[in-house]
Amino acid sequence: MKSILINEYNPQKNGWEESVFHTANGYIGVRSCQEGGAQDGVFSVRGTYINGFYDEKDIAYGEKLYGFAETGQTIVNVTDVQTLEITIDGETFSLDKGTVLEYEHELYLDKGFQEKRIMWRSPSGKEAYIIIRRLASLVEKHLFMMSVRVVPNNFSGEVKIKSSVIGDVSNFADPSDPRVAAEEKSYLSVINAEFKDGNTAFIKSKTQRSMLELSCAVRHRSSTAKEEKHFALGNTLLSEYTYSASPNESITLSKYCVFVDSRRSEDTENSALSILNESFEHPMECFINKQIKYLEDFWSAARVYVDGRKLQRSMDYCLYSLLCSAGQDGITSVCAKGLSGEGYEGHYFWDTEIYIFPFFLLTAPEIAKQLLLYRYNILPKAREHAKIMGHSKGALYAWRSITGIECSAYYPSGSAQYHLTGDVAHAFIQYYLATEDLDFMRDYGAEVLIESARMWLDTGHYMNGEFRIDSVTGPDEYSCIVNNNYYTNCAAKENLLWAYKIVNILKKAGKDEDIKTRLNISEKELHSFKKAADNMYLPYDEELKINPQDDSFLNKKPLNLKEIPKENFPLLLHYHPLWLYRHQVLKQADTVLAHCLFEDSSDRETIKNSFEYYEKITTHDSSLSACAHSILASYLNDTEKALNYMLMSAQTDLEDTHKNTKDGIHTANMGGLYQSVVQGFAGLRIKESGLHLSPRLPKKWDEYAFNLYFKGRKISVKVNKKRVTLTLLEGDAINLYVFDEKIKLKDKEKINL
Amino acid sequence: MKSILINEYNPQKNGWEESVFHTANGYIGVRSCQEGGAQDGVFSVRGTYINGFYDEKDIAYGEKLYGFAETGQTIVNVTDVQTLEITIDGETFSLDKGTVLEYEHELYLDKGFQEKRIMWRSPSGKEAYIIIRRLASLVEKHLFMMSVRVVPNNFSGEVKIKSSVIGDVSNFADPSDPRVAAEEKSYLSVINAEFKDGNTAFIKSKTQRSMLELSCAVRHRSSTAKEEKHFALGNTLLSEYTYSASPNESITLSKYCVFVDSRRSEDTENSALSILNESFEHPMECFINKQIKYLEDFWSAARVYVDGRKLQRSMDYCLYSLLCSAGQDGITSVCAKGLSGEGYEGHYFWDTEIYIFPFFLLTAPEIAKQLLLYRYNILPKAREHAKIMGHSKGALYAWRSITGIECSAYYPSGSAQYHLTGDVAHAFIQYYLATEDLDFMRDYGAEVLIESARMWLDTGHYMNGEFRIDSVTGPDEYSCIVNNNYYTNCAAKENLLWAYKIVNILKKAGKDEDIKTRLNISEKELHSFKKAADNMYLPYDEELKINPQDDSFLNKKPLNLKEIPKENFPLLLHYHPLWLYRHQVLKQADTVLAHCLFEDSSDRETIKNSFEYYEKITTHDSSLSACAHSILASYLNDTEKALNYMLMSAQTDLEDTHKNTKDGIHTANMGGLYQSVVQGFAGLRIKESGLHLSPRLPKKWDEYAFNLYFKGRKISVKVNKKRVTLTLLEGDAINLYVFDEKIKLKDKEKINL
Repeated sequence: MKSILINEYNPQKNGWEESVFHTANGYIGVRSCQEGGAQDGVFSVRGTYINGFYDEKDIAYGEKLYGFAETGQTIVNVTDVQTLEITIDGETFSLDKGTVLEYEHELYLDKGFQEKRIMWRSPSGKEAYIIIRRLASLVEKHLFMMSVRVVPNNFSGEVKIKSSVIGDVSNFADPSDPRVAAEEKSYLSVINAEFKDGNTAFIKSKTQRSMLELSCAVRHRSSTAKEEKHFALGNTLLSEYTYSASPNESITLSKYCVFVDSRRSEDTENSALSILNESFEHPMECFINKQIKYLEDFWSAARVYVDGRKLQRSMDYCLYSLLCSAGQDGITSVCAKGLSGEGYEGHYFWDTEIYIFPFFLLTAPEIAKQLLLYRYNILPKAREHAKIMGHSKGALYAWRSITGIECSAYYPSGSAQYHLTGDVAHAFIQYYLATEDLDFMRDYGAEVLIESARMWLDTGHYMNGEFRIDSVTGPDEYSCIVNNNYYTNCAAKENLLWAYKIVNILKKAGKDEDIKTRLNISEKELHSFKKAADNMYLPYDEELKINPQDDSFLNKKPLNLKEIPKENFPLLLHYHPLWLYRHQVLKQADTVLAHCLFEDSSDRETIKNSFEYYEKITTHDSSLSACAHSILASYLNDTEKALNYMLMSAQTDLEDTHKNTKDGIHTANMGGLYQSVVQGFAGLRIKESGLHLSPRLPKKWDEYAFNLYFKGRKISVKVNKKRVTLTLLEGDAINLYVFDEKIKLKDKEKINL
Repeated sequence: MKSILINEYNPQKNGWEESVFHTANGYIGVRSCQEGGAQDGVFSVRGTYINGFYDEKDIAYGEKLYGFAETGQTIVNVTDVQTLEITIDGETFSLDKGTVLEYEHELYLDKGFQEKRIMWRSPSGKEAYIIIRRLASLVEKHLFMMSVRVVPNNFSGEVKIKSSVIGDVSNFADPSDPRVAAEEKSYLSVINAEFKDGNTAFIKSKTQRSMLELSCAVRHRSSTAKEEKHFALGNTLLSEYTYSASPNESITLSKYCVFVDSRRSEDTENSALSILNESFEHPMECFINKQIKYLEDFWSAARVYVDGRKLQRSMDYCLYSLLCSAGQDGITSVCAKGLSGEGYEGHYFWDTEIYIFPFFLLTAPEIAKQLLLYRYNILPKAREHAKIMGHSKGALYAWRSITGIECSAYYPSGSAQYHLTGDVAHAFIQYYLATEDLDFMRDYGAEVLIESARMWLDTGHYMNGEFRIDSVTGPDEYSCIVNNNYYTNCAAKENLLWAYKIVNILKKAGKDEDIKTRLNISEKELHSFKKAADNMYLPYDEELKINPQDDSFLNKKPLNLKEIPKENFPLLLHYHPLWLYRHQVLKQADTVLAHCLFEDSSDRETIKNSFEYYEKITTHDSSLSACAHSILASYLNDTEKALNYMLMSAQTDLEDTHKNTKDGIHTANMGGLYQSVVQGFAGLRIKESGLHLSPRLPKKWDEYAFNLYFKGRKISVKVNKKRVTLTLLEGDAINLYVFDEKIKLKDKEKINL
């Protein structure tokens, strides 16, 4: 397996490098900042984040109307453990001093750690090879590790490594970008910073308003130091190691950093110290071995083999990053930027359910389940939010949040995105269809489906026998507060229908009593769900033979995207929302995405027309857009176009095509890249009838392949120029549909293309 | 003429009393606070305001998108001169101590001052009669005066009056009400506070960001004091007068307060001192006489005689308040709350042009002209605003502002209200039609009409030959960001048509060269205005035979207002905007108002149907609503209903029906009350063909009458049960239309009803 490697340090790309090479495991994420600190004028966000570890703040409004979200939440930059100062015989190592003779930064996607290799010549001519490794354990989630190796090349003398644990940290801000927090702020207050037992740096901190506690315990191992000192400077704890250095003799230091927070532990201090003690028993090599073992399993299920080295690297990087981003504890999900930056303030959006969840569902159903549990656990908050938004019953999920309260300060493209609740429902339905886990639906899923169906019923209304949903915003944020957004109505229709269905399925299985009593559901109510679903109004334009994005979209002023100067993209940073809303222009796939997810709501001809219509006016200003276009282009057998969109998606972070990877990676797009192959080229759909595949191969490709889990089976899918080969790797024979033809997969099936 | 009188002090109504009895003259406004200060727990806004004297502040957003208004402006609470402490033989007068034996507060609408008469018995039993007068000179706009008279009733002893000029003042805030500023703040910093020449209190202050300067000079006259002392306590300047008091012997003190600001004067200090010196030459009586004289002229043109004492008092109060609120210097207009409070932060809205301007146009055209000049003078700001909003050319007036920059922090019911620009155009057109002042149109009006027409042309677009305007908000703020709002499209149509017309009228008069060169107008562009006007799409529903408020309004969920609990009104304080937008519910007249202003855009039958349809779903949560319903009910000959709506309008401030008069009076509604009679019962319309009247008399009334100016004539209109009597009071004979029949008015015409 390839790694991600750069062999040059570019201060202009420092922020990008920090994000792309961040080290995370779904619990903790550390940006890959230069250990010695950023040089003056170099963009840097020195960040360490814990999934779901947040503070709160008032949301400011110049004019505040009823029901506006009052409290914002933001992921907190926590105790900084990545700072190291390396002094080579009196000269402190820094990338902007002396000469960098060699710079390599490599992330090993199969080994779960990264390494920076630098050959540095000091201003006075002393050369040393410096190797720094970082790892966030996929097995012991609370552990982040670093190691430093210094190998003198042409001198003997003294080497010092000063390692810090810094308690006073603050969050980054960029007031000019609505996608980043506007105000720099320190959320974490140090309660206690001290060395325990002489050499264990320990910092306990508390957030100011959410009152969450974090304990960070750090200990170093260095066998060769001739001297070590530990001392505190305010809330910074310093461990200084001094070595006698000789040419080609390695100096090594490893740093064990354990973070435990009060959302996961009742006694963060003892828990952190005990995990540290236990971890400290083992050398870093041992944790690397565990990473390798863990990743073997992961890649065995998750790897997607594509054609082309560069693309394969992007794909591997994206899927690896998804694994490192996903909360797996039922109280967290996947932040829009994973744990790689503060963009979107560490909030969870629909990105998880629509873009990321399908990947986990097919490759790691247990993680998928945890992501659903997160939604189940915040259902009470969604009920409260529905009330605030004027609903007499039901649940409406917040557009952006950490704990479930609405944190969107601009509701037209925030709370108004009701579709998110349908997206959550869609994920639960897909989970059920892919796992047949009826007990999960009884205990969790049905409640989510029913409460959300209640919300839809209260939101929409009947007109001329049709059920209509007004004043919501669809996925495309360049048209806000619209009526009968096609995507939203499709999602609501599925949600309403499945609220009805799931109770009937549970009933047949004799498992419906609990949920019916608990939620006080009557047959009448169930039928009202079905009636609304059956009569859901889905806009269709007779003339263009497309599904209009919403009731008025096709009446808006046309816009020729080619006439917009290139520097005016993304449009949201250059045009007032009203101007955008007034034009037929899309930030991202909306109806196109609906055709991917709810393809049975329309016919092939309409989908083709829609795709052609919307493609011309979509800016892809959102990183969530290209992949949907790729999937639908595949569906329409235009694999060349599909491949182009897929490449667009693949380049997002590694090539920084949206120019904001510095704020963090784009996790939804990463899930989208996966889907471009699996839902796209392979045409995979999970339907009530079962697993459907309609594999196509881009002309330029020789083959692609992936494995997947479905109803307990592990299945391998390989597609080359001649045929599709399906292999049942685990589990009993199962019926599948290939090009809508039923196939019983027992062992291996080959279908000619 | 009746005065406004209350004869009881009610601490619960203190805020209301402060607003209703405020003293203003269009330049300065002083709330009628208790001179000795508000008692604990009593709502009070101790405010003094100067029209257009503002400071700036950043507008806060949790999520700020491109083009959002960045800088807020707020009218500034200025130097407090109304504070007086009266001590009766050692006991300080206060309404919550001793016994208030008599309390009368009276505002003389024909004399232009107010008087408070209090008989007070001190805790130890000493009784004194205290009379305090206040006046804001209508002739010397910079002068505010107070006088105190103390008449001991049952004691001899010492009386002290301590009069203050307080430099440290701050603005009021109510974070729970979006209609009031959210943050209490002191905008004015004292630069200099001292006594000049021993007894002239002088305070010079500066606003923090707008860097405006204010000089306030105060001197007292007291002939009978046995001792006077002047001293400063920080930024408070105190003048203490001591008197020997005997029963029934008056003690008097008068206080001359002059305010001069740097928006009107280059040398505020010398200007204030010189105006003070000049004013001080004359006793208060002299200024009262000038008020009386001024008001004689005013009332001669402006008074509307209605039926019923209470209603007459309301009408008189409203028209008097309008006079006292209107800026007449071309750099100011009429604040939504006049100069009586800080509600809506002293901003000017469309209220002026649509609700207030018609009153001045018909009764004081010179003031009307000044209000238009304000709009002309801020045209450069409107051009900038248009650019920010994405328009390649033209001018778009800010929704709320003092100097013309957009200050609305919630654009869906702020900047999105494009109709305001059409409203401004409407006022210019009405002015031209009522005055034939073509030079004014050449110098000012045409430019406004053309620049606004350019904006409309850039905003809308053609579809199937119709010109459509999307993504704007009409007057009704319970439906935001809609397409083809009927009101807006009517206003834009008129605006576009008149941009074309006025150039042609100027051309005929040989006055078009300057404007055509200055604005670079081609014949082609002029025809593009006309074409858009001629093809303006005005929504019409075939089934209901009404004009829908916008394209989607009739598809929204119906709402039965009767089912909403009473305590949930106004709805905006109890429902999220999305919930409101999702229902067929109106904050205020929208299409109904369009039918009043642009009656020729629809036929009578449609107007009737519309009125009936919208009336049922209008909450009148806005004080701008009732009067439009009154006017249209009159138009539809339902004078009983018209009268009811008129009474609703009449009660607004005097009965505090919106429960927020404490934040200031409702000036738009006051203009609306005038229109309920003149445009309503009398059916007055100013059209291209001339002045139209269609007088009706409510059944309960015996008669009503008013005068008006039209094309230089002064005309009296009297309507009783039998006939309409029109009398030409000044000027040459003129053609008018009564019930659409042309009449040549030479002297007096009587038309039987």
